Amino acid sequence: MMDNLDLLKGISNPSPTKIVLLVIDGLGGLPNPKTGKTELETANTPNLDRLAAEGTCGLIDPVGPGITPGSAPGHLAQFGYDPVRFNIGRGVLEALGIDFDLQPGDIAARGNFCTVDEAGRVTDRRAGRISTEKCTELCRLLDGLVIERVKILVCPVREHRFLGVFRGKKLAPEISDSDPQQVGVPPRTITALRPEASKMASIASQFIAQAKTALAKHYPANMVLLRGFSQRPHFPTMGEVYKLKPVAIASYPMYRGLAKLVGMEVLETGTSIEEEFLTLKQNYAHYDFFFLHIKGTDSAGEDGDFDRKVRIIEEVDSALAGLMSLEPDVIVVTGDHSTPALFKGHSWHPVPIILHSKWCRPDRVSEFSESACIFGGLGRFPAMQIMPLAMANALKLTKFGA
Amino acid sequence: MMDNLDLLKGISNPSPTKIVLLVIDGLGGLPNPKTGKTELETANTPNLDRLAAEGTCGLIDPVGPGITPGSAPGHLAQFGYDPVRFNIGRGVLEALGIDFDLQPGDIAARGNFCTVDEAGRVTDRRAGRISTEKCTELCRLLDGLVIERVKILVCPVREHRFLGVFRGKKLAPEISDSDPQQVGVPPRTITALRPEASKMASIASQFIAQAKTALAKHYPANMVLLRGFSQRPHFPTMGEVYKLKPVAIASYPMYRGLAKLVGMEVLETGTSIEEEFLTLKQNYAHYDFFFLHIKGTDSAGEDGDFDRKVRIIEEVDSALAGLMSLEPDVIVVTGDHSTPALFKGHSWHPVPIILHSKWCRPDRVSEFSESACIFGGLGRFPAMQIMPLAMANALKLTKFGA
Repeated sequence: MMDNLDLLKGISNPSPTKIVLLVIDGLGGLPNPKTGKTELETANTPNLDRLAAEGTCGLIDPVGPGITPGSAPGHLAQFGYDPVRFNIGRGVLEALGIDFDLQPGDIAARGNFCTVDEAGRVTDRRAGRISTEKCTELCRLLDGLVIERVKILVCPVREHRFLGVFRGKKLAPEISDSDPQQVGVPPRTITALRPEASKMASIASQFIAQAKTALAKHYPANMVLLRGFSQRPHFPTMGEVYKLKPVAIASYPMYRGLAKLVGMEVLETGTSIEEEFLTLKQNYAHYDFFFLHIKGTDSAGEDGDFDRKVRIIEEVDSALAGLMSLEPDVIVVTGDHSTPALFKGHSWHPVPIILHSKWCRPDRVSEFSESACIFGGLGRFPAMQIMPLAMANALKLTKFGA
Repeated sequence: MMDNLDLLKGISNPSPTKIVLLVIDGLGGLPNPKTGKTELETANTPNLDRLAAEGTCGLIDPVGPGITPGSAPGHLAQFGYDPVRFNIGRGVLEALGIDFDLQPGDIAARGNFCTVDEAGRVTDRRAGRISTEKCTELCRLLDGLVIERVKILVCPVREHRFLGVFRGKKLAPEISDSDPQQVGVPPRTITALRPEASKMASIASQFIAQAKTALAKHYPANMVLLRGFSQRPHFPTMGEVYKLKPVAIASYPMYRGLAKLVGMEVLETGTSIEEEFLTLKQNYAHYDFFFLHIKGTDSAGEDGDFDRKVRIIEEVDSALAGLMSLEPDVIVVTGDHSTPALFKGHSWHPVPIILHSKWCRPDRVSEFSESACIFGGLGRFPAMQIMPLAMANALKLTKFGA
């Protein structure tokens, strides 16, 4: 049966029009009990409000009503990929996040340096969040081990987090995690979930045993936990599907990695919102699709910092003026999911969206907010339909069917 | 997996209630920059507004958000057929459009008379849009050729367009187009896309060679281009699926052809809106489902004639009074897609819809317009769900499941 991407592949055409997809991570919120207003409703956002008034608004469900998405499905849906069908393992996501070039056959795992007590029970899954420097030093102890002709590459990520990559022949990723996801219990024994993965289960177990020995004197980081063993998937690229020349501007590695997985180029940029927008401006001539990712809103939401999330939204709004002066044919502003400060984490709430183009049909919404977007002309719809809408408004799709 | 039609087939029942589906082709529009109002919002439509106020409203996506439908998918969706799954080839659509009675096994192709230069390169894909008279004359030169016991029927359509039908044994339609869809290159060589189609590829190639010879002295129409080779598909009929006795009233052949494809009877009617409504009234006793198709709105939209589209909508509104006096159990008013006069073509914008019946749950919408329908009780939904809604409101569906 024909799938969404096949359909789009059949009707997409290259054209000089430009699309900007601005993803304000964790944008959606919940009302502050004191004011009855969400973060977005509290923020002073004249530019977003102008886009909302001129454009058409709505609410998206990243995966589906009630489903809280992780970062990968949240973003894949934005790029038009069915987030249930196109799944990415945690290990691969970690590799993407540090620009690690996974080879065909490589098995990647997300690693934590952790603390275990004398009985071998996990007492801190993050080893007191050791510094990235310390993590780098410890990774050097483990990197390059060879077990039964399988080479294990160990790369620091950030703080206690590292990437483990198993490179060898006939390795299958279907093995269980060693990370128990709780303290007070020992790491779990890794087992093969399919007969073909028994070699991999054995290698991973031996690696963990060797790591324990090597780290014995490095309290609090005296053990490792591994999870999310996975292989790099092969997705059709955005170039193939949409005939776009797409580029990503994101200060966090994971989002750059996700963008690469769907065939985007990735630009070097700074860590501030201003720098990200500047990078877009400087490279505006060279691409026709720009994925611009703002991380701060999600972090503030996760920290439960309502006011900081408000400030970051206002900062994005200020930076938007420069983007709007470039007059992209289509501007989409939304988030990959909600991260209400009151909830202190990703949530399932639908996310407000603006679609702004010469060809959109304006609605009566004149401010960008959760409560106003309910009445938007786009209605409530799955995030994976954002791309067809953006492509249509950029006049990059021909008619479907005779 | 159970499909929509299977589900409906299992719960549909014949009953004396009557459904009218009024399709105002290309109904949806975009606001006139001078007034901020769409064609439908500009038109004075007391009857449509009354239906909207008494009924329930919404917006439909014919194929999906962002997807601009051709006429075939736009209509199949209205009749409840998944427009992605139930595909109709271009050649078949052309045959439907001129009431050509395709036989089982016939392969139909859309043909263009075109111009080629001395080197055989296409210089005009439409041969300067020759007159329909000239087209008819040229078709006579080619009609009735027999190649390896395959008879080729060639019928004029309009201007440079013609229908080619290949009638013979063991012909398969899976061959490539000869139409290069661009100028400056020669027509493409036709190739079989499946081994079973090699005979058909050979016959089509020989036909094109003979046509070239026959047309050599008929510059600018000195060559043919063929595309969209296809066979008449077999769809479950509306009688089978819905237990309806359905009838179509449409002045344009293509829509009559689409209606026949899903098992509707087709009534003779005039070309004016008044005549079409009169045909419905005269035949009201004999059917329980009426598909009434209004073409003028789409044509006006394609021509970019905002005011003409407004006038035609007003004409439909006037004619509606007579239909309403018949008191059909269910009246659905919508379009198969949007054709905004500002856009001068089919577009992806969702189409307003009214569902009027004794049993619908009224909403707060009191006018029929794009901006009001956003707030309708039906919300925004795929067009292929219109039929289940109409059937339910006509009390023609029993409970699903125990």
